[in-house]
Amino acid sequence: MNKPKHHVFVCSSSRITGQQRGYCVKNDSVEIIQRFMMGIEEEDLTGDVMVTNTGCLGICDKGPIVIIYPEGVWYGSVSPDDVAEIIQSHLVGGKVVESLKI
Amino acid sequence: MNKPKHHVFVCSSSRITGQQRGYCVKNDSVEIIQRFMMGIEEEDLTGDVMVTNTGCLGICDKGPIVIIYPEGVWYGSVSPDDVAEIIQSHLVGGKVVESLKI
Repeated sequence: MNKPKHHVFVCSSSRITGQQRGYCVKNDSVEIIQRFMMGIEEEDLTGDVMVTNTGCLGICDKGPIVIIYPEGVWYGSVSPDDVAEIIQSHLVGGKVVESLKI
Repeated sequence: MNKPKHHVFVCSSSRITGQQRGYCVKNDSVEIIQRFMMGIEEEDLTGDVMVTNTGCLGICDKGPIVIIYPEGVWYGSVSPDDVAEIIQSHLVGGKVVESLKI
C-alpha cells in the first residue's frame, strides 16, 4: 500500500460507544475536517496527505486539536479559518505554523 | 505538553456524521482498543503510549486497522488476540510484528 507522507488527524469527539460528543465537535471540528479534505484535493495532495477523524485526544481545553504525523506536530485551538494556513505552510511548504503549535 | 512516544490509532469506524458503522467496528475493533488501553496500563506505559480511535482509514478490506506513529507502521487484519503481541513486541521491545504489517 502507498502510505501518506503526512497523516492529518482531527478530533471529531467520536466515542467508541458510538456517541459523538465533546469540545472539539462543538467547536466546528467537522468543518475543519471538511476544509482539510477539500483543500488537499484543491492542492492536488491526494495520495500524499491523508485526513482522519478521531476520538478524544485528551486535552480538550486546548481543542479543537489537529495532529500531523509522522512529524508529531500538535496544533490547538484550531478554527476552520486556520486550515488553509496549515495546508499552505505545513503540508505544502514544510513549515510548522508556530502560532497554533502546542 | 508531554507528547507520547508511540501513538496507536485504531479504526472504530466512527463517521463524522456521528454514526459508527463499518468493517472494523463489526470485527471487534472496540475490543482491540480496550485491550490496548488495559495492556498499556498493565505494562506501565501510560504517558509513553497513547491510544486513539479513528474514523475509516480507507482500506477496509485489510481491517481491522491499527497504525502506530511516528513509526508509520500499519497493521491489518488485527484481532483482539493480536494486541498483546503488538504491545510486547512493538511497544515494549521496539520490534515490528512482521506477520501483521501491511
